[in-house]
Amino acid sequence: MSRFPTKEGVRAAAARIRDHVVKTPLLPVEIGGVTSWVKAECLQTGGSFKLRGATNRLLQLSADERKRGVVAFSSGNHAQGVAIAAKRLGILATIVMPSDAPAVKVAATREAGAEIVFYDRVTESREEIGARLAAEKGATLVPSFDDVDIIEGQGTAGVEIAEQLGGMPDKVLVCCGGGGLSAGIALALPDAEIVTVEPEGWDDMARSFEAGERVPVPDDAPATLCDALQTKLVSPLTFGALRDAGATGVSVSEEEVQTAMAFAARHLRLVVEPGGAVALAAALAGKAGSLSARSVILVSGGNVDSALYADILTSQAVRAE
Amino acid sequence: MSRFPTKEGVRAAAARIRDHVVKTPLLPVEIGGVTSWVKAECLQTGGSFKLRGATNRLLQLSADERKRGVVAFSSGNHAQGVAIAAKRLGILATIVMPSDAPAVKVAATREAGAEIVFYDRVTESREEIGARLAAEKGATLVPSFDDVDIIEGQGTAGVEIAEQLGGMPDKVLVCCGGGGLSAGIALALPDAEIVTVEPEGWDDMARSFEAGERVPVPDDAPATLCDALQTKLVSPLTFGALRDAGATGVSVSEEEVQTAMAFAARHLRLVVEPGGAVALAAALAGKAGSLSARSVILVSGGNVDSALYADILTSQAVRAE
Repeated sequence: MSRFPTKEGVRAAAARIRDHVVKTPLLPVEIGGVTSWVKAECLQTGGSFKLRGATNRLLQLSADERKRGVVAFSSGNHAQGVAIAAKRLGILATIVMPSDAPAVKVAATREAGAEIVFYDRVTESREEIGARLAAEKGATLVPSFDDVDIIEGQGTAGVEIAEQLGGMPDKVLVCCGGGGLSAGIALALPDAEIVTVEPEGWDDMARSFEAGERVPVPDDAPATLCDALQTKLVSPLTFGALRDAGATGVSVSEEEVQTAMAFAARHLRLVVEPGGAVALAAALAGKAGSLSARSVILVSGGNVDSALYADILTSQAVRAE
Repeated sequence: MSRFPTKEGVRAAAARIRDHVVKTPLLPVEIGGVTSWVKAECLQTGGSFKLRGATNRLLQLSADERKRGVVAFSSGNHAQGVAIAAKRLGILATIVMPSDAPAVKVAATREAGAEIVFYDRVTESREEIGARLAAEKGATLVPSFDDVDIIEGQGTAGVEIAEQLGGMPDKVLVCCGGGGLSAGIALALPDAEIVTVEPEGWDDMARSFEAGERVPVPDDAPATLCDALQTKLVSPLTFGALRDAGATGVSVSEEEVQTAMAFAARHLRLVVEPGGAVALAAALAGKAGSLSARSVILVSGGNVDSALYADILTSQAVRAE
């Protein structure tokens, strides 16, 4: 029996995970003379919104399922979310990570007590490895976005936005990989205009909106710093929820992403990873239409290797005089 | 008629400025296996706690005083606090800044619409320049810490801490320059142990505690990255409040400060300036005694030049593998 993610499910998730997650702040941000809001999910425990969905999923496992452990595949943020949620609940977590995942994400996942299995992004299938490990251990596979509980858990960020804003936002710009966060927020905030933002060339959600059906990322997609957003195909659940909400999609360049990271450091004092900065990049580049005092920009993650981060800040550094 | 800053004054300030400042988040931080809390004042508008005191002061000016403007001298954070508070209230602000102030602080002060007058830190007296400018314009001088309204305004961060923690913290580590924030927090949280933290060689508050009277920084004090904490002598008001509260003081090295900045970027996803990182540095170095789930570390500011910040992160970068 399959069900679809719903607004009621998001609300139930918010009540379920409330004591397990940080209520991240809504911070004012001035762009082009207008003050809008940033929802700073980089300040979530584990450095991204992913703890929300993972906690919502793991809290609903039976005692027997908890004993057999969980398996997840992820380039990093979902890995950390699952590892932290699992550790807190005394559940063994095995994470399948690409061998080129950012070191900071690998280290943090390991520090959270998870077992890590590496795979080659080009020659191996993480889905197959994940499924095999889950079968071997009798463990539960925790998908990173194609799952009702995960989507409803991520949507709790939207419930907080409405609380913090004292009502519905008029527009929400969301960083979009597989679309779990975007879909959850669309469900949580049905009266808001939802704009998904992806890296150029990896804008499968935007292309899917345009085509009216799911369209994969082409095989020759360009390199991107946005490791967190390199999904090849959105899921029926996330695409369906966003399409039903009338969401639209835009994409941003690598240069726009780096500009947004430097802007966040200087004006918001937030460390933002490339994939976590795309929505802000779209706002700064004026790609998501006009913003208002009731517009919200999701900053979804802040796990970036120090050396890369320092390089980006250096290249973007503009002396004031 | 002079008065002293009080707990009631801090509470009144909190009510007065509530709609003018960001209620900055209390974020969990794990140090040595214990989870304590960081009060992230680097996320305050203007990038430091200084907006609190400036807003509290300026809101109490008469209509006539507002018309004649305000003057402040500051290496940066107080400058920004006064400039932003003044702009919002339609007050003209003139800021006296050292010619070696961080470019990011100068630029932000200018962006907030303030007029800037530079002085030479070695050969000129900012107090004299400030007093002369105030006299010329009939403007009100807004001190950076030696002022009842300023201290009570900064203390509003402590009121928020008690609200967010649901009661009194057992210990609060506070970055200390002139002592305005520390004194305000000591008044707001009378049952907490207050530990002031200063850069090595600039620990005039700690030396004053030890001597039982105010002791200036020696003329041969070493160079420090903590531009925000280079006060030569604490004031009777701040010293008095902290001494009465039984506060103690510790100091941290430049290396410990840089380690704390890198820790904050990686584990808290916060951009913290050197002076804003000293309390966290003391916590990480184990210099402030044991911490608990009711201990709070103030992170007081995040205005650091991008190039310097990138250099520090690069030098501190530790690859996970």
